[in-house]
Amino acid sequence: MKISREKWSSNFSEWFDWVISQAEIYDYGRYPVKGSGVWMPYGFKIRQNVTTLIRKLLDETGHEEVLFPLLIPETLLKKEAEHIKGFEKEVFWVTHGGEDELEERFALRPTSEVAITLMESLWIKGYSQLPRKFYQIVSVFRYETKATRPMIRVRELSTFKEAHTVHETFEDAARQVDEAVEIYSKFFDILGIPYLISRRPEWDKFAGAEYTIALDTIMPDGRALQIGTAHHLGQHFTKAMDYKVQRADGSHVHPHQTSYGISDRVIATVISINGDDHGPILPPVVAPIEGVIIPIPGKSEEDTEKINKYAMEVESVLKNSGIRVALDASEDKTPGEKYYIWELKGVPIRIEIGPRELNSGTAFLKRRDTLEGKSVKREELVKEFRNLEDQISADLRKRAWEQFKERVKRFQSLDEAKKFLENRGGIAEVPWCGQDSCGLKIEEQVQARVLGTPLKPEPSGNCVVCGKPSTNILRIAKTY
Amino acid sequence: MKISREKWSSNFSEWFDWVISQAEIYDYGRYPVKGSGVWMPYGFKIRQNVTTLIRKLLDETGHEEVLFPLLIPETLLKKEAEHIKGFEKEVFWVTHGGEDELEERFALRPTSEVAITLMESLWIKGYSQLPRKFYQIVSVFRYETKATRPMIRVRELSTFKEAHTVHETFEDAARQVDEAVEIYSKFFDILGIPYLISRRPEWDKFAGAEYTIALDTIMPDGRALQIGTAHHLGQHFTKAMDYKVQRADGSHVHPHQTSYGISDRVIATVISINGDDHGPILPPVVAPIEGVIIPIPGKSEEDTEKINKYAMEVESVLKNSGIRVALDASEDKTPGEKYYIWELKGVPIRIEIGPRELNSGTAFLKRRDTLEGKSVKREELVKEFRNLEDQISADLRKRAWEQFKERVKRFQSLDEAKKFLENRGGIAEVPWCGQDSCGLKIEEQVQARVLGTPLKPEPSGNCVVCGKPSTNILRIAKTY
Repeated sequence: MKISREKWSSNFSEWFDWVISQAEIYDYGRYPVKGSGVWMPYGFKIRQNVTTLIRKLLDETGHEEVLFPLLIPETLLKKEAEHIKGFEKEVFWVTHGGEDELEERFALRPTSEVAITLMESLWIKGYSQLPRKFYQIVSVFRYETKATRPMIRVRELSTFKEAHTVHETFEDAARQVDEAVEIYSKFFDILGIPYLISRRPEWDKFAGAEYTIALDTIMPDGRALQIGTAHHLGQHFTKAMDYKVQRADGSHVHPHQTSYGISDRVIATVISINGDDHGPILPPVVAPIEGVIIPIPGKSEEDTEKINKYAMEVESVLKNSGIRVALDASEDKTPGEKYYIWELKGVPIRIEIGPRELNSGTAFLKRRDTLEGKSVKREELVKEFRNLEDQISADLRKRAWEQFKERVKRFQSLDEAKKFLENRGGIAEVPWCGQDSCGLKIEEQVQARVLGTPLKPEPSGNCVVCGKPSTNILRIAKTY
Repeated sequence: MKISREKWSSNFSEWFDWVISQAEIYDYGRYPVKGSGVWMPYGFKIRQNVTTLIRKLLDETGHEEVLFPLLIPETLLKKEAEHIKGFEKEVFWVTHGGEDELEERFALRPTSEVAITLMESLWIKGYSQLPRKFYQIVSVFRYETKATRPMIRVRELSTFKEAHTVHETFEDAARQVDEAVEIYSKFFDILGIPYLISRRPEWDKFAGAEYTIALDTIMPDGRALQIGTAHHLGQHFTKAMDYKVQRADGSHVHPHQTSYGISDRVIATVISINGDDHGPILPPVVAPIEGVIIPIPGKSEEDTEKINKYAMEVESVLKNSGIRVALDASEDKTPGEKYYIWELKGVPIRIEIGPRELNSGTAFLKRRDTLEGKSVKREELVKEFRNLEDQISADLRKRAWEQFKERVKRFQSLDEAKKFLENRGGIAEVPWCGQDSCGLKIEEQVQARVLGTPLKPEPSGNCVVCGKPSTNILRIAKTY
């Protein structure tokens, strides 16, 4: 069957708004605070499956979950000069409690480096307690003045997973940044999200970091989306707060830190990356409902009753195997209307149970991604269902990566790169001499954003600005 | 062995501060925002086990988890007159974004009735969609002016589980309040927390409710603690926001609502209720570590090595059965020092592995609550461990209820009740005629708080104020 991706690819923004609203994932634009969305029950479950997965990956690697206060006193937030410079225009301020004006203003956390460093300085005094890795999943707030977009650019990021680590040495912190990138890579691999890993340029690193490594994907409209970042914070915060730990030799040093985060954007990506004009296609690992059973009425009421009973049996067989399954037995909709709804909700497998299935003791499994169907015997249902899920997951990942790779292109001239980006091509790579001045000129001339450089330098040709031999390639994209 | 409860019972407040700090549960009083605590890794896991349990109970009964924005615009919060009257002195206000003054102030949610009602009015239009039950677990904020206390009276309640439901009729909403009380009762029963269910007096119901049912427990110092409330909201909010649904007969009515909540106080209670002077005793269901293995060194290094190896075997046997177990193999502490630490952390079972256990192929299980020990065969370890956990859970529950019942006393005169409460006795019950004026006089005269009345009236004797025949008993207590 021909799968249409017209709406999805050529009018992605509208497609996304339609999906999150009609599939009852995320209510956006109706709650009367700009840039704030509501996670509806179905969306909340997708979100929960995503957070469960990242929790697992972090717990396995020695991260400890914590929960810090939302409010950060102004003086604390201003401890690290570069940090506050980067965030001060984005901070929401609490100034009153009841009718009282507060003695000091409180920021709604835009991120938690200062709050966590402060407590680390009370908890961790010596080298034998290092390294230590914390994380929390919380709301953070940014007073965005640019156009807001559901899940992607919001004022309340309600699914901000921020990790914060402390280390004795610069090198150990650098290794931690590598581990963070590895964890995120694994996370995105499981979700089937393709990405490029780039070292952000000096002028776009995190406010208060030595350097920033970022993971970017490409949305269906060709714009790059930052979906994960990891920062080497060096001693910026520990020096600003004069936090020292004792080393084995008795000396005291300011420890090194890292922080790394992901947000609601991961959920936006997982919903978008495999869409078609019927809606999203959720990877089984995050789908709230992995399979939906649709009974097809028979010729007589008696037949229909038997079919419904058989559908319930199929439901309990799958449920008992731990598969998240739903039976849509509603009588006010035709099977076709049900197909429409559950495709819109992105359920990866549809299980049709009609007269044929009843008589032959089978179930008809239909893939949401390819719309291909397959009849399986009842006795093999669970095994076949699991196999099909694995196949779907693998195919979704493969297709997403193929599309992604087609959209990352290398150019030897800035004009070509510019044209490519103007046509919403994806990510352009151009040779670069490594100088900030040339990088900034590139940004200006192509009217796009520099994502940075590959971690392993890939010199190829001459810098597209100054013509000197390149030291690496530079990645550029229209971004969210 | 004699178990000392001196510190725990006679200086509870100090005991609690000591436990949450030394057991690394909740860092309080050091983060520079009054009434804000930090959930440390060990405490976070207790919290997580508690929230997992309430999620399960709510999901099983058709509740759907959602996530609403933190910020509530001032005009929205002020829609329901009684509601805002009850909360206006407690609200934190956000007035600035970056350097801009906001056009409208935003409240940090003190609770979410108005926000959720607004979205319900967009989501639920007709009777066939009713009832609908939502919940979320979020931070809420109260600008408390009274003395704050860790977990018990804070400005950021970081574990606020609030449920919100919509119904066609008053009666259906009333049944929902009953269900809420049932769910909370089950929840507290599983946690081993004793409670009384009272209908709050008219003058102390939730701001914007028809009536409020509350669950109160008694802390070790004899003060009552409200640990759960359920409110019948009637049509207060739906009328204030003119939200109507269509009934089967085509007419439009304002639906009825309920809301019910629990908070961090449940975690404070579960930590406190079974304490002794060594620390808390966590019920196995919420203990982050159900059993801790302590190797006891042998006479020779060789023996010690064998013991350590055996301890690791014991660890993997328990782990493979899904038991949350830890092996404390640290070499810088004596077994006695380890006992101290893990008792302080409230681990319900200690597993001692020494020369005797090695030679006889056994493990020595020691109960945290009674300090009784028992040698079990390796082959029966998992079964015995599980049995012991069940026994501990049952005994903790029984002991807590016995203590609780001793602290709920009935009096025929106000003087006696007053004396009882002044000695931090617990909850006093006195005959009451049912008039608000007499109830308020009782509060004033005993300098305590009225908790309300039993749901099933228990008239007994004459009103302690006016002397008329009682219609029910009234419960009074010194409260948190």
